[in-house]
Amino acid sequence: MSGSTFGNLFRVHTFGESHGPGLGAVVDGCPAGLRLDKSDIQKYLDRRKPGQSEITTQRKESDEVEILSGVFEGKTTGTPIGLLIRNTAQRSGDYSEIASYYRPGHADFTFDEKYGFRDYRGGGRSSGRETAGRVAAGAIAARMLQELGISVMAYTRSIGEIEIDPKAFDRDLILQTSTAMPDARADERARAYLKECMVEKDSAGGVIECRVTGLMPGIGEPVFDKLDARLAQAVMSIGAVKAVEIGDGISVTRMRGSENNDGFESYEDEGARHIRKLTNHSGGVLGGISDGSELILRAHIKPTPSIFSPQRTVNKDGENIGIEIKGRHDPVIVPRAVVVVECMTAITLADLLLANLSSRMENLRKIYTE
Amino acid sequence: MSGSTFGNLFRVHTFGESHGPGLGAVVDGCPAGLRLDKSDIQKYLDRRKPGQSEITTQRKESDEVEILSGVFEGKTTGTPIGLLIRNTAQRSGDYSEIASYYRPGHADFTFDEKYGFRDYRGGGRSSGRETAGRVAAGAIAARMLQELGISVMAYTRSIGEIEIDPKAFDRDLILQTSTAMPDARADERARAYLKECMVEKDSAGGVIECRVTGLMPGIGEPVFDKLDARLAQAVMSIGAVKAVEIGDGISVTRMRGSENNDGFESYEDEGARHIRKLTNHSGGVLGGISDGSELILRAHIKPTPSIFSPQRTVNKDGENIGIEIKGRHDPVIVPRAVVVVECMTAITLADLLLANLSSRMENLRKIYTE
Amino acid sequence: MSGSTFGNLFRVHTFGESHGPGLGAVVDGCPAGLRLDKSDIQKYLDRRKPGQSEITTQRKESDEVEILSGVFEGKTTGTPIGLLIRNTAQRSGDYSEIASYYRPGHADFTFDEKYGFRDYRGGGRSSGRETAGRVAAGAIAARMLQELGISVMAYTRSIGEIEIDPKAFDRDLILQTSTAMPDARADERARAYLKECMVEKDSAGGVIECRVTGLMPGIGEPVFDKLDARLAQAVMSIGAVKAVEIGDGISVTRMRGSENNDGFESYEDEGARHIRKLTNHSGGVLGGISDGSELILRAHIKPTPSIFSPQRTVNKDGENIGIEIKGRHDPVIVPRAVVVVECMTAITLADLLLANLSSRMENLRKIYTE
Amino acid sequence: MSGSTFGNLFRVHTFGESHGPGLGAVVDGCPAGLRLDKSDIQKYLDRRKPGQSEITTQRKESDEVEILSGVFEGKTTGTPIGLLIRNTAQRSGDYSEIASYYRPGHADFTFDEKYGFRDYRGGGRSSGRETAGRVAAGAIAARMLQELGISVMAYTRSIGEIEIDPKAFDRDLILQTSTAMPDARADERARAYLKECMVEKDSAGGVIECRVTGLMPGIGEPVFDKLDARLAQAVMSIGAVKAVEIGDGISVTRMRGSENNDGFESYEDEGARHIRKLTNHSGGVLGGISDGSELILRAHIKPTPSIFSPQRTVNKDGENIGIEIKGRHDPVIVPRAVVVVECMTAITLADLLLANLSSRMENLRKIYTE
Repeated sequence: MSGSTFGNLFRVHTFGESHGPGLGAVVDGCPAGLRLDKSDIQKYLDRRKPGQSEITTQRKESDEVEILSGVFEGKTTGTPIGLLIRNTAQRSGDYSEIASYYRPGHADFTFDEKYGFRDYRGGGRSSGRETAGRVAAGAIAARMLQELGISVMAYTRSIGEIEIDPKAFDRDLILQTSTAMPDARADERARAYLKECMVEKDSAGGVIECRVTGLMPGIGEPVFDKLDARLAQAVMSIGAVKAVEIGDGISVTRMRGSENNDGFESYEDEGARHIRKLTNHSGGVLGGISDGSELILRAHIKPTPSIFSPQRTVNKDGENIGIEIKGRHDPVIVPRAVVVVECMTAITLADLLLANLSSRMENLRKIYTE
Repeated sequence: MSGSTFGNLFRVHTFGESHGPGLGAVVDGCPAGLRLDKSDIQKYLDRRKPGQSEITTQRKESDEVEILSGVFEGKTTGTPIGLLIRNTAQRSGDYSEIASYYRPGHADFTFDEKYGFRDYRGGGRSSGRETAGRVAAGAIAARMLQELGISVMAYTRSIGEIEIDPKAFDRDLILQTSTAMPDARADERARAYLKECMVEKDSAGGVIECRVTGLMPGIGEPVFDKLDARLAQAVMSIGAVKAVEIGDGISVTRMRGSENNDGFESYEDEGARHIRKLTNHSGGVLGGISDGSELILRAHIKPTPSIFSPQRTVNKDGENIGIEIKGRHDPVIVPRAVVVVECMTAITLADLLLANLSSRMENLRKIYTE
Repeated sequence: MSGSTFGNLFRVHTFGESHGPGLGAVVDGCPAGLRLDKSDIQKYLDRRKPGQSEITTQRKESDEVEILSGVFEGKTTGTPIGLLIRNTAQRSGDYSEIASYYRPGHADFTFDEKYGFRDYRGGGRSSGRETAGRVAAGAIAARMLQELGISVMAYTRSIGEIEIDPKAFDRDLILQTSTAMPDARADERARAYLKECMVEKDSAGGVIECRVTGLMPGIGEPVFDKLDARLAQAVMSIGAVKAVEIGDGISVTRMRGSENNDGFESYEDEGARHIRKLTNHSGGVLGGISDGSELILRAHIKPTPSIFSPQRTVNKDGENIGIEIKGRHDPVIVPRAVVVVECMTAITLADLLLANLSSRMENLRKIYTE
Repeated sequence: MSGSTFGNLFRVHTFGESHGPGLGAVVDGCPAGLRLDKSDIQKYLDRRKPGQSEITTQRKESDEVEILSGVFEGKTTGTPIGLLIRNTAQRSGDYSEIASYYRPGHADFTFDEKYGFRDYRGGGRSSGRETAGRVAAGAIAARMLQELGISVMAYTRSIGEIEIDPKAFDRDLILQTSTAMPDARADERARAYLKECMVEKDSAGGVIECRVTGLMPGIGEPVFDKLDARLAQAVMSIGAVKAVEIGDGISVTRMRGSENNDGFESYEDEGARHIRKLTNHSGGVLGGISDGSELILRAHIKPTPSIFSPQRTVNKDGENIGIEIKGRHDPVIVPRAVVVVECMTAITLADLLLANLSSRMENLRKIYTE
């Protein structure tokens, strides 16, 4: 089948392995007339790049994007936007050993079972590097949302046991701290914890939170393409994510209905009456459709599976062996995955915003007969 | 757009409102030659029916399914299977009032925002009754899985604070307890808690767990149609679900890599060597592909939004009002949603099992040239 | 796979066999707020009904449609519209014989090869009766187009050698002549020819032409979902169609570029300048996108395969046998297929009209920010 | 929407404009384990290249393909295959003039109407050059078919009035004659005719025929994804195609049923009984499913719209003007489109071969439980 396509109208196809010639994406269905510059995409890719701090791998990847098509005179043309990122930093020699066994926590075993063999260099298609294509595509989605006044922001909410303090929230810190935490004190503690993990040849997990402001009500398609359902797929499809929550998430299971329901109120603004929710336990979605409140989701990410301490596994001759993984690996996936969560959220919203254009006959009349 | 289709190969389309003439599903893509009887479907629908205990609404719905097409001489023919369930118990009079305001926690407001108006009778398309179509379709998926030795089982893991004791797990109880809990003591405590909620005109949430045994490795399509990603969409698309976990789920974020990684071992069985994982923190999925272990997921469900205590909302004239909802409503959604989670899981697996047929050239050779 | 779905946004799923309980369609993605009445659909189905003249089978089928969902207070709600037509006139006894051999020109052999067995009653899913679902769905598409000032009209252009005279074209005759020819003299000659065929236990083919007026330029999606490409699929998917032409069709292959190219001119209308083509060899499509001229296509239909004269075939024991088909069969498919071509054209246009809503950023601004 | 994707399982996405950095395709869903070399693709692209004879433009395009992903150690891996062809011969200066008016017979006008503006350089996305991506992808499909013993062959059947003589058919000539005609005499006459067209600053059309041998019965999905319906879309989506025929095509409309029906016979081969058709008017398809006979289709192609004689059109200021197109243009599209028809046919078959894997439960048992 064809698992590398996401979206129905704003449609993203990705391709590429960690150590092949390159990877990228084709974005089909982006409306014509969106101002788009290479730098709009590059700045998102730069947030994903490794080698930027003591807690990410020192592997150097330039990750420079080339726009192959679909943009003319600084604007999207409505045709597919081809995006290419060349692989430059591959040192295939590093990976010759892992061809011979199944790394615990990785997809080596399942790729072999599915396809009969695998491109073992750096994890091939199952490498975290695959997300570069998503980020390039997501940057375009984010540009489109920006034009409509919608803003998507993700950040690290916790690493291991260390959680940010909502009261200390400082948006500017997201792009400044190496943990992507919007809280300087939590960042400091998390970095200390990660160094401890590294010393112990171990790794850590964490939680990414994503918030969307400016989203109009009405977005999301019942029954199966609900906003929250599509976001769940989008976010869970990121390697290492093991749980997705919307709004109050798992805590709702212990609430009473009287606590969890969000009442409504009407209010006057600039002479017109509007309706809003009194609280936002729902996280911005009711019945799978955006309700005009802030959209809130969380992705729960497992510890990096590539650890340097001894592990038990099986080699290609079927023998039980002990291994110690070598190479350059981040002790935590979370900080570099923040922009991936942001991008998958943006792609999902872009797609459902286009889908919603056909929800009412009056929209057709407005576009076609006025 | 078209949000009422799920699946690419085993494709389910649902239709129908709570109080229209009927609801149902069309299952397109079920392979020919599967033995299928009306009773195979009816027994799943019967598990979803209300009015079966003191903790579900006393509304009587017969929910009898009719197979309209696609089955001939007791076998599927490979053509679309039309499934119809007539609505018989509608008492539209009950719902005249809710046409005039937005119920907190329901989709009344968002449907109006999206479509300009709504079928307000019993929640229309956003009613929990919509899941009858999913269950009818899911029963067929489950039949198909059964033929391949795959078994899907869901149950209530917790209601409010009351959780089952894994040591007391008794599979037979799932269909016998009114909470769908596989633990008699927990069931008793949960029923007591729910009666308390009812007395207080309030409602409760809970957790459904689903386990799949017999699933071969190799199922799931990277990158976006990963097994866990598609399951996340499938399960999150069920009304009232606010979080989805795979395997160890949210708890992985506090684990170290050395704790969370599942090692591999090889062993001999009937003269052949096989590979299995030493533990199953992953919940049966690695890199989005089934790994041969038990598949485990959890759905977190919010408290029933229809509660009888006073709530604040807005009426259709834009006035802020207080309301007290009347009618027949379950104090908890969880027990009746168990079969829905099971069915959405089965549909997802059926679809990805068909998709995986084209993963290798040798499969084509086996089917077409041998 | 899933071959019973057509369209991406205005999505039609059909189901049902000739002799099962019923057949129908689910239309998912019809915008909310379209006035729709059962009679809007019934009048299209009535055009497809048999038993209405001496040149169609005398089989009586009431073909009454029931709307199961998606319409509330006389308007579409934006949710799936379930449509059911009960089979009432089945006399399965008539078909017991055909279970034992492969009818030439029918799908008996290929269904057996594909699925391993078949519902042989009346051709099962491959019966012309399958088109009832398409017509019910197409009637809704036509209603939507009508609201936007777009009109779709199909008619019989020829039967055997007898062709209509364009100068004698009388639109009103399409619904009055039993051949669906818009030319009384051609109709008379065609009926005489068909009677001759019937006497000779033989059958005839013919050509259906379809014209669309009021279609705005810009509809159709390059590269694979071009307007003409999607129409070709839509029309070729009707059983018995063996060729599809757009505009001047096959005759362009003998033209020179200077003859076939349509020049452009600008003109003034109500104070504004507009552009139009000087001729319409293209049939209303340039580069797969509507060009504002009349859209013109033709479907070429083979003679009814069920003929009463002797034929050679193979029975289920693999023996070569001679057969003489019995039963009630139209001597020509063309007249009853006219409304099917019209409906498939309408569905294709409805789908691509919705798709085109997302072609420009300015449309998003108009819907979301004004 | 998203018109640059074709296929559901063997899924081809194309991108790229005539004068941007490059164009290409992503093939998602090709089964793992197919031997594939760059030269397998290059040899198809070389057949499409211009500048190879006196009857094609002397423009030089190297059209060298790069495989970006999805192939490892000479075999497909099951992951998306990225294919890139750099544009090298662009001389944008040639096209500055056409930015200012609408060329008759081209998509300039309709792209402007759809998207608000267009990449006018060399026709942008609507250039015939777009087909390079299809050919690169189609070469992979053809490799897959070859492994299963299926062979696809297209050739020029006629140019203007000059038609090949079936008795003179010589398959080897297809790749040798500059017209791609499998008949030396017809080739000679056609070249003379084309020179005449060139002298008269005019252009010609023609017919491409495509034949598939070795195709097993059972391929094609009723109702809308019939083999012939999908082929019709595939072929009509090629720019300049105005009609598609299957088997006897338009001539069936004048046949009687007794002439057009193909009888069946059984015969013995290597001790087993088989069934075949006595004739092949159907062109290898019955009820939208392959019937085991040779598959035959024809594409009817209009004369090249870029002609050097004077034409009437409108400029961007809305003025009526006369133009004379300059530049390098083939006097006929047909010979270079032969490989495109072949490739679109191969892609369609590859996709439906994968789809058919899930037609029977016994296939699932064979793959999963044996």
